[in-house]
Amino acid sequence: MALIVTPTRGMKDFLPDEVVKREQVKKVILDTYSSFGFKPVETPAVEHLHLLNNGEGGENEKLIFKILKRGEKLKDGLSDNESLSDSALRYDLTVPLSRFYANNKGILPKPFKVIQIGPVWRAERPQKGRLRQFIQCDIDVLGNEGIEAEIDLLTASGTALRNLGFNDFSMNFNDRRVLYAMADFCGYDKDEYNSFFITLDKLDKIGVEGVLKELSSNSFSEAKVFKTEELIKYLVREEVEITKLNEILEGKISEEIIYNLNLLKDTLSELGYSCIFDPILVRGMSYYTGTIFEFKYKNYPGSIGGGGRYDKMIEKMVGESIPACGFSIGFERIINIMEEESRVIGKDIRNLALLYDNNKLSDVYKVLYKLVENEYNVSVLKKGKKLGKQLKSLKDQGFSYYMIFGEEGIKEMI
Amino acid sequence: MALIVTPTRGMKDFLPDEVVKREQVKKVILDTYSSFGFKPVETPAVEHLHLLNNGEGGENEKLIFKILKRGEKLKDGLSDNESLSDSALRYDLTVPLSRFYANNKGILPKPFKVIQIGPVWRAERPQKGRLRQFIQCDIDVLGNEGIEAEIDLLTASGTALRNLGFNDFSMNFNDRRVLYAMADFCGYDKDEYNSFFITLDKLDKIGVEGVLKELSSNSFSEAKVFKTEELIKYLVREEVEITKLNEILEGKISEEIIYNLNLLKDTLSELGYSCIFDPILVRGMSYYTGTIFEFKYKNYPGSIGGGGRYDKMIEKMVGESIPACGFSIGFERIINIMEEESRVIGKDIRNLALLYDNNKLSDVYKVLYKLVENEYNVSVLKKGKKLGKQLKSLKDQGFSYYMIFGEEGIKEMI
Repeated sequence: MALIVTPTRGMKDFLPDEVVKREQVKKVILDTYSSFGFKPVETPAVEHLHLLNNGEGGENEKLIFKILKRGEKLKDGLSDNESLSDSALRYDLTVPLSRFYANNKGILPKPFKVIQIGPVWRAERPQKGRLRQFIQCDIDVLGNEGIEAEIDLLTASGTALRNLGFNDFSMNFNDRRVLYAMADFCGYDKDEYNSFFITLDKLDKIGVEGVLKELSSNSFSEAKVFKTEELIKYLVREEVEITKLNEILEGKISEEIIYNLNLLKDTLSELGYSCIFDPILVRGMSYYTGTIFEFKYKNYPGSIGGGGRYDKMIEKMVGESIPACGFSIGFERIINIMEEESRVIGKDIRNLALLYDNNKLSDVYKVLYKLVENEYNVSVLKKGKKLGKQLKSLKDQGFSYYMIFGEEGIKEMI
Repeated sequence: MALIVTPTRGMKDFLPDEVVKREQVKKVILDTYSSFGFKPVETPAVEHLHLLNNGEGGENEKLIFKILKRGEKLKDGLSDNESLSDSALRYDLTVPLSRFYANNKGILPKPFKVIQIGPVWRAERPQKGRLRQFIQCDIDVLGNEGIEAEIDLLTASGTALRNLGFNDFSMNFNDRRVLYAMADFCGYDKDEYNSFFITLDKLDKIGVEGVLKELSSNSFSEAKVFKTEELIKYLVREEVEITKLNEILEGKISEEIIYNLNLLKDTLSELGYSCIFDPILVRGMSYYTGTIFEFKYKNYPGSIGGGGRYDKMIEKMVGESIPACGFSIGFERIINIMEEESRVIGKDIRNLALLYDNNKLSDVYKVLYKLVENEYNVSVLKKGKKLGKQLKSLKDQGFSYYMIFGEEGIKEMI
């Protein structure tokens, strides 16, 4: 049988230059979040299937890589899917964090400010820029119901992006409860909210007319669609003030929400961020209960990060109410943009080839140790018969310096 | 249904202090190997099942976590195990490296010096210190048949351990071909070699008498067991010289092997390492073809790293002969020892709590930015009503400093 040596479907091998860049980006993010008081935790790649399938994972639950049960149990009842698997690869870092918190809450500080950077797996249809294994990079504040948690997440994430050289991004924010007020104002019933939001979320792609058409074809009444049209046409005109929107919505947004959203906007604006109230921002996941946010970069479609408040999710695992709020930086997205913009971070790597001939190897390595102390990355290599040709090949491999053992000095490759 | 919130069987959640330590150890290893000219690569966690099941994985092949096939295919022929899964979690980094090399060889330098640090999965019976997901940390030199490859691996790994504060370790080495010479000398047939080596490998645990008893009970002839007894009794007395052993073995080890092993020993000894020829060292994996090594630390049983030459393995995937040699640092082992010895690496983390009251949040965060510039990790926290109690709790959480917004200066926790 011919061996297949490409990676498994939708997955990727990373070459040295890519790994170095990814590690540098990870380090900048981790260091920045650490400097804002966030603490790293790590959970296993494999989680209990019943937690992953709990209904909060939305579309991701359809993309689970299940792990085959081992041993005896497998032999019976193969036709029953449940008996085949009771664990699976995680599709996000939020479900594992909830489990982690439930498992360790006795020894965690309150509020608990946490970073997670790690791979997740989703069996998506392979397409450009979407891998079946990719890095997620989350921060969360657990146990703080105040708007300070949101401000913490956004300042830390904004700083991480600035430290990566991103400056032209905006922080768009909204609140699920603003969306509820809008839906209520337009006359939708509570059980129609989600369908309305799903359509509203497509505004960017299908435009106002498209949204109205879809609402009509979902058999919402003419009255609802008409009120929606009026509202959306107002919302898309220009940046909307929260207080102004609330007047239009006849005061359906509570004073507390308005106060908090304004505090969020003012604080971040004063810290130099472009912070935009975006009442059409929906965010897909059903577990959000309050604020939601997305960072937009230049004219790139989609976002380079997003998150929100999910005060009800952890309760289900912990058994007590734990307010929670999280932000996920779009790690793979950022890497792609950095590549497109040929952006460089971190210091230059100084690769040096130390060439020897028939020399005593321990003497050669003693020179290597000295060069390493001087911050070169050193490869000990046998000197080839054709030095010129060898140097050319080494240059192509990324060596910028060489030294011939026994000769004076470090030479730069020309 | 009550939710299970402990990690899946045999896996582990890592708390912040553990993650910080693990990341520091990874960084020291990665930086050291990079400084010796090794380049990092990354492969996916999920590999083709047919590559993992290729017979070179030894016992590990019994411990594979298989991934359930998705979609249509699953519905038919459930009784056929092959139809259930065609991919699985990797159990080591060597099979993926071979596949990676086969897939990318056109663009890789020769020799290719490579680092991999990443998780692997084995469905082992859970026991102390053995997890079902753990970090492996491998370096390999592909495409160099000379003993320089071994010297490169061992100097780099030795330096990594020294940089982690390990000094009292020895580098034990042997060569599979020395083992073959010994087996031949004792009269074993080629197809009996492996059985002989498996028993010999238990010498540490069951002693000379135990080894001889097991050989007899495996129905090896009295003559073979007698010759084995003679040889082992000589080997266990004291450190053995390679040349001396070859005399006893009636010259069955080739001159080239002797020359190389002596060069290895002399070079590493001159670089200050305790480098010991250990003719009883076996190493479990059947894919080794030449040198094998293990690092021993103080009186700890087992090893803190090991590896060897495997010149035939990659050929099977690449279709051409690629000499290869690798070393794996026992990452989890080293972490455990560092914990047992309460060893600290890296600089202290300076956690500071920035306490505010009814202050303007953007002003508070402006102070945070200044503190971060001065290398503090800063958590913005609301000042509690009982400051003394709050400070005590913060100290317990690992904060060493605090600052009250509006007051002068940084205070140390007492």
